[in-house]
Amino acid sequence: MQSSRSKPCSCPSLKLREVASMYFTLVAAFLVILVVALQGSAPRQNDFPYKVPLDPQGLLELSWNVSYPEQVVHFQLLIRELHFGLLFGMSDRGEFENADLAVLWSDGHNSYFGDAWSDAKGQLHMDSQQDYQLLGARRAPEGLYLLFRRAFSTCDPKDYLIEDGTVHLIYGILEKPVHSLQAINVSALHGGLQRVQLLKPNISIPQLPRDMKSMEITAPDVVIPSQETTYWCYMAELPEGFPKHHIIMYEPVVTAGNEALVHHMEVFQCAADFDSFPHYNGPCDSKMKPERLNYCRHVLAAWAMGAQAFYYPEEAGLAFGGPGSSRYLRLEIHYHNPLVFKGRRDSSGIRLYYTATLRPYDAGIMELGLVYTPVMAIPPGEDSFILTGYCTDKCTQLALPSAGIRIFASQLHTHLAGRKVVTVLSRHGRERQVVNADSHYSPHFQEIRMLKEVVAVFPGDELITTCTYNTEDRSRATVGGFGILEEMCVNYVHYYPQTQLELCKSAVDPGYLHRYFNLVNRFNDEEVCMCPQVSVPEQFYSIPWNTFNRDVLRSLYGFAPISVHCNKSSAVRFPGQWEKQPLPSITERLQEPSPRCPPSPGAQPAAPVPLHLGQLRR
Amino acid sequence: MQSSRSKPCSCPSLKLREVASMYFTLVAAFLVILVVALQGSAPRQNDFPYKVPLDPQGLLELSWNVSYPEQVVHFQLLIRELHFGLLFGMSDRGEFENADLAVLWSDGHNSYFGDAWSDAKGQLHMDSQQDYQLLGARRAPEGLYLLFRRAFSTCDPKDYLIEDGTVHLIYGILEKPVHSLQAINVSALHGGLQRVQLLKPNISIPQLPRDMKSMEITAPDVVIPSQETTYWCYMAELPEGFPKHHIIMYEPVVTAGNEALVHHMEVFQCAADFDSFPHYNGPCDSKMKPERLNYCRHVLAAWAMGAQAFYYPEEAGLAFGGPGSSRYLRLEIHYHNPLVFKGRRDSSGIRLYYTATLRPYDAGIMELGLVYTPVMAIPPGEDSFILTGYCTDKCTQLALPSAGIRIFASQLHTHLAGRKVVTVLSRHGRERQVVNADSHYSPHFQEIRMLKEVVAVFPGDELITTCTYNTEDRSRATVGGFGILEEMCVNYVHYYPQTQLELCKSAVDPGYLHRYFNLVNRFNDEEVCMCPQVSVPEQFYSIPWNTFNRDVLRSLYGFAPISVHCNKSSAVRFPGQWEKQPLPSITERLQEPSPRCPPSPGAQPAAPVPLHLGQLRR
Repeated sequence: MQSSRSKPCSCPSLKLREVASMYFTLVAAFLVILVVALQGSAPRQNDFPYKVPLDPQGLLELSWNVSYPEQVVHFQLLIRELHFGLLFGMSDRGEFENADLAVLWSDGHNSYFGDAWSDAKGQLHMDSQQDYQLLGARRAPEGLYLLFRRAFSTCDPKDYLIEDGTVHLIYGILEKPVHSLQAINVSALHGGLQRVQLLKPNISIPQLPRDMKSMEITAPDVVIPSQETTYWCYMAELPEGFPKHHIIMYEPVVTAGNEALVHHMEVFQCAADFDSFPHYNGPCDSKMKPERLNYCRHVLAAWAMGAQAFYYPEEAGLAFGGPGSSRYLRLEIHYHNPLVFKGRRDSSGIRLYYTATLRPYDAGIMELGLVYTPVMAIPPGEDSFILTGYCTDKCTQLALPSAGIRIFASQLHTHLAGRKVVTVLSRHGRERQVVNADSHYSPHFQEIRMLKEVVAVFPGDELITTCTYNTEDRSRATVGGFGILEEMCVNYVHYYPQTQLELCKSAVDPGYLHRYFNLVNRFNDEEVCMCPQVSVPEQFYSIPWNTFNRDVLRSLYGFAPISVHCNKSSAVRFPGQWEKQPLPSITERLQEPSPRCPPSPGAQPAAPVPLHLGQLRR
Repeated sequence: MQSSRSKPCSCPSLKLREVASMYFTLVAAFLVILVVALQGSAPRQNDFPYKVPLDPQGLLELSWNVSYPEQVVHFQLLIRELHFGLLFGMSDRGEFENADLAVLWSDGHNSYFGDAWSDAKGQLHMDSQQDYQLLGARRAPEGLYLLFRRAFSTCDPKDYLIEDGTVHLIYGILEKPVHSLQAINVSALHGGLQRVQLLKPNISIPQLPRDMKSMEITAPDVVIPSQETTYWCYMAELPEGFPKHHIIMYEPVVTAGNEALVHHMEVFQCAADFDSFPHYNGPCDSKMKPERLNYCRHVLAAWAMGAQAFYYPEEAGLAFGGPGSSRYLRLEIHYHNPLVFKGRRDSSGIRLYYTATLRPYDAGIMELGLVYTPVMAIPPGEDSFILTGYCTDKCTQLALPSAGIRIFASQLHTHLAGRKVVTVLSRHGRERQVVNADSHYSPHFQEIRMLKEVVAVFPGDELITTCTYNTEDRSRATVGGFGILEEMCVNYVHYYPQTQLELCKSAVDPGYLHRYFNLVNRFNDEEVCMCPQVSVPEQFYSIPWNTFNRDVLRSLYGFAPISVHCNKSSAVRFPGQWEKQPLPSITERLQEPSPRCPPSPGAQPAAPVPLHLGQLRR
């Protein structure tokens, strides 16, 4: 390491400086061309089934594949305009500090590739164990392809652990020559982040029927607003008399050139309670948007950047059309336009594939987690406050068929303070299986995710959904509710066969919460308003937050009985006693899987790999 | 690994069984002699400065040394009577489950050495990374010497991390031939545990003065009672008119043959308030023991098995003799006699080395931690409940000299529920340094330990002592106090120059505790007795313990103001306001040091090492 690092410095420093200043004037036009493949043959296109642009201009494009037997991700990074190298890596939430990075850098003469990490101040360090392993570099007309691999888990405490769920990828462009890794100033870098699900499930595509038809729900030539964030709403309509069909697959339709702008898209079905819905085509937050569109909330399809086509399992399809089902659909597109491009036109949307030959089972969507109620609140200033919602044994006993249901997909949902979400299946008080988990959850990246393994849920099972929130930037309590600054903790699970159970959620018993307000009032000798006419949010807002009041709220949520919503629809409960139910108790926790470390010989020495560069050209 | 493990099985199994049964009848007399040194020369005696018997009969004797530059411990294990092998290793608290083990085993023909671990059920597994590295085996008239080394930290999650403080060593004797590691039944093994401080500090011995004299405080030919545990008390007396001296060193005097029975010894000085103390020589818990002996609690010297001589720093000595100092000393010996030997005679004790040429500074002893008061309590059924005692900035500001004090040794103290103790120095709200820590603390192994680094404490610094307790076997709350079933959290720090500050401790404000009782009462709708005439312990005993009451008590201790004892002696406070003081706040925690892993090539493959055995003999 010592020798290779000092190599660039062995040139006389004066000359280097001259050369460097020459580069600075030309830097935007420079293209460093790598001509060596270190190992292996050139990758074929279908070796990398997953693809995502990293930057808003699409200059960096990441493709990858996942090998579960090897527990390794292979990356192919296309760099359309290489200047003096780049950083690519992963970090907890997309920050450049405490990140795990693969770095390609050039001093103008020589180029190097190495595995590095950034400390809490953003300073780069060569990693003592080289776990981003360079496999090759290939020049093509469209740019430079870098190929490298990375084990899910390296057992190096400086490294990021690649887990299921969201991974925050980061990139940074080196626009000037750098003479060593340590000289890179991360804070001055032009870079950004992109969220993806790296560990895509390895699912075989079910047989598709011959009579399959498709229907595009797309935005009609929208001019993307020149602002960073737009939620675009467009109302579509099924033909009159459209009979019941099964949606068996859907895929994104993204207008060519807008791949980096179309962040996520969802198709919602409207409530059957209304005979008609107004047409609308405009921003979702516009004052012009008809009120009634708020009743279009039943998810039919959801896609987010990096996701592929979604296939229903062979035995099931999502029913739409027919009596008791609204003809009205709402398409919502999140345009992410940080560079504020003007006048870009877009006709993206989702293509639904459906069949009239109904499959054996209707698929259903069930809401797990917390009831949307202010009794579940998060104190301000917390970096990781946890709330838990329960689908109890009593509810599944009553509502699920004896053969059980199969959960095959899941969409996690919180509002802006959500940081982690996990649902665990518990049977007889023992945790059995993770239904879906995202330890790097972002409210800005909500996909419907196929589960790696279908989860069977039987009567008497419990489904426990836990959300972790960050309220460090808030000065008053965040209560549960529908508002974007209120919070939710939901897992929409997709399952079959469909049952009457639409909602299996909980919230703390309001009587116990009242005792809490009482207790806080007396303990702190302060005036928390206890008058019955004051709302729960007002009571939470009036609490003087300190560690005691915070800890006791946490203890309350971990102890007090719950009110269970075991509902056929959001308003109709199953018959039974659902108030003051005991908290499910867990006698056996799931063990954290101990990470599989790469065998010792796999790790490479802590030295940058020199690359044989072609000539620098303008 | 496969080949070497299957080797023994290649012999016809019938023959093996015959051979084995022959052995069983002779097993006690068998001596397997190893004649091969795998590597390196025979160790010299002074290569291993630390020595401890492992078993009560002294058949297994462990010697070791510590290399801090290499971060490695070298072990030399003397096996006086080898049967068919042995297990030696480390575990959290001396249990055979989840232990990290070096195993020597023989099938009667071949012997093997390997690094293994036991799971939660006690089943042995070969470790995938061999970190106990065999260096050699040597036959001698007294028995077989095994030499091996082990890095402090291996970064293998199955391995024990060797830290400062107590290490629970375990051993087990294989009395029958075993054909594989997996065949060893740990639960049926004859074995035991021994506690030692493995990572002895690397301190150079100070120059000793020429006029140094010594004095033995030893038990006068005691017959060790034939019971597992005896605390023996013996009163000694300094000559009349004995002037002030400095104790500058002391060492154990252990009667030959009793090395495995003498568990620990302490010399206490009696209170100067009484002119005389009765003579006594008998068990400390005897009804015949005079009451007044309870006033002999000032520690002059303390030794525990495995400890060596204790040296005061060159600049300081512990004053004894002279006016204002009692002539009476109490020697306390803990005899640990699990095999219930009868009629063993013992004259062990401690030899004090002292000088009349007083050193520049008197050494002092200061008590940090919690006040002995029932207001600090631990709920029943807890596996790790934490209590914290504070020596506040206000107290050190008042009581310490501006040049500060130097802490050079520390004795951690709790009663039977104590599991961990740590004292941290904090300055301006930032944790700076660990004063002393024991993550495997045992109340049965209380040594005065020299610190690896002398800790300088200045006016305004805070010393925060945290104890972790286990009350899983208890059904009612454990309150603070003097009784053996009550608890303490104390760090006796040895320092110089001596100051007037003898006690710098804290406890929760009693008013806030009263609010807690009140709160618990109302919240649970239960009858916790609140009447003022009922004692704090009675109030704690009447609490219906559930997670809420437990969590809120924890929150209270983490929030409520404290009563500070900033005392010249146990009864005399420094002037000032010491009630309802704010809890010290910590804005920056000490980082856990990330373990240094051995370089990859150092780890050996996961295969047992075959040993070349000599012939089996009777």
